Amino acid sequence: LAGDSERLQEKEMTDSTNNPVHDTTLINRIGRYTCEEYFARVKAFHGSIAPGVIIGGIMVDMAMARIPEKILFNAICETSSCLPDSVQLITPCTIGNGWLTVFNLGRFAVSLYDKYGGTGIRVYLDSNKLENWDEIQAWFLKLKAKNEQDTNRLIEQILIAGRSIYSLDSIQVKSQYLTRKPKKSIGICVACGEAYPIKDCDICKGCQGETPYETRNLSLCISTHSHMSVEDGSLPK
Amino acid sequence: LAGDSERLQEKEMTDSTNNPVHDTTLINRIGRYTCEEYFARVKAFHGSIAPGVIIGGIMVDMAMARIPEKILFNAICETSSCLPDSVQLITPCTIGNGWLTVFNLGRFAVSLYDKYGGTGIRVYLDSNKLENWDEIQAWFLKLKAKNEQDTNRLIEQILIAGRSIYSLDSIQVKSQYLTRKPKKSIGICVACGEAYPIKDCDICKGCQGETPYETRNLSLCISTHSHMSVEDGSLPK
Repeated sequence: LAGDSERLQEKEMTDSTNNPVHDTTLINRIGRYTCEEYFARVKAFHGSIAPGVIIGGIMVDMAMARIPEKILFNAICETSSCLPDSVQLITPCTIGNGWLTVFNLGRFAVSLYDKYGGTGIRVYLDSNKLENWDEIQAWFLKLKAKNEQDTNRLIEQILIAGRSIYSLDSIQVKSQYLTRKPKKSIGICVACGEAYPIKDCDICKGCQGETPYETRNLSLCISTHSHMSVEDGSLPK
Repeated sequence: LAGDSERLQEKEMTDSTNNPVHDTTLINRIGRYTCEEYFARVKAFHGSIAPGVIIGGIMVDMAMARIPEKILFNAICETSSCLPDSVQLITPCTIGNGWLTVFNLGRFAVSLYDKYGGTGIRVYLDSNKLENWDEIQAWFLKLKAKNEQDTNRLIEQILIAGRSIYSLDSIQVKSQYLTRKPKKSIGICVACGEAYPIKDCDICKGCQGETPYETRNLSLCISTHSHMSVEDGSLPK
């Protein structure tokens, strides 16, 4: 019975979001959680109850309500800020399992799409719909310094604004992001001695100069092989 | 008391990893979890008990044991496969909070480093140390098709191999990845009408052609603003 009433509640939520432009129903659930539960999960995973992860949760929820049940969906975030954590908290998609990809376009938008066909839904926080929500607007457009921000009021506005501040697109993901590439063969990089996908070149991408390290020293253990890499620009990365 | 014995256990673990090359102590804890607890968390978050997330957990654990207590550390993964989920499961670092960054170099390596100074520890699965562990070697170097893989035996080998199959480097992260860039000003893209960091250009990166979408139609709601973007290559992205 509990399960049924929960399913009913979810159905109601789905129905009420058919025209999100005018839907200012108070947000009281995010994903399968009450707001309180979701906030606790955000705190535990993300480290703080960041407005972006709350907004992201509502956006992901709106996208989920619009994709057919029982399809396998993947997710795209158009920013690495906050939004990926919303996806990871309320969908099965994570960075490490490959069902979530971040394209750093700097837009606060998330898409869920059929992983085979590529059709899906994109949801974004719409700056054109924020005129009545000064605290959200100030946060989103960075009009205030962070220490001037009234976080309680901001979160209150996010919940009260409901689904009225978002817009939706239907999308078709490019085919190059849909087809799983054939498993790459693994080779051993002649420069650093580590395993890497050989399609990248004779040497791995790290040794090609894409390393984030200034220096790297094998000072911490006796290695059983002979490489002596130091990432100083002249030796292997 | 329970707390004390747990702390003691962690200290023992730290001590026993001082020379990981010869440390074949059975893995019985990963992060602050027993293996059983960690496996359950991996299943819930990642979707399956993937060998890469188990190995990743041991690697992150080894790195954590070697960074000074009470420093704020960030994480780098050199692959997007599996490893980022290990970091997100046992450290406070996530993609969305910005403390975890993925550099897709194709190497199975993770680094934890002092977020201000950039000094840290890099741990990688060392292909030169796998001669006694045929199932791990076959998995890592992709010598077997996935359906020929004996996953139980693989996970057993991972736990029995202990910390003997990894190598460690000390690293210094490049300064450009340490300094927080000043907050970018937000503008509205003249092409798609969405908010974006204006340093990117007059139009957002999506409209510059980096969009992952073939098509994008505002077919799902009445927008309050006038743009009619279609991602077909000629109109805004």
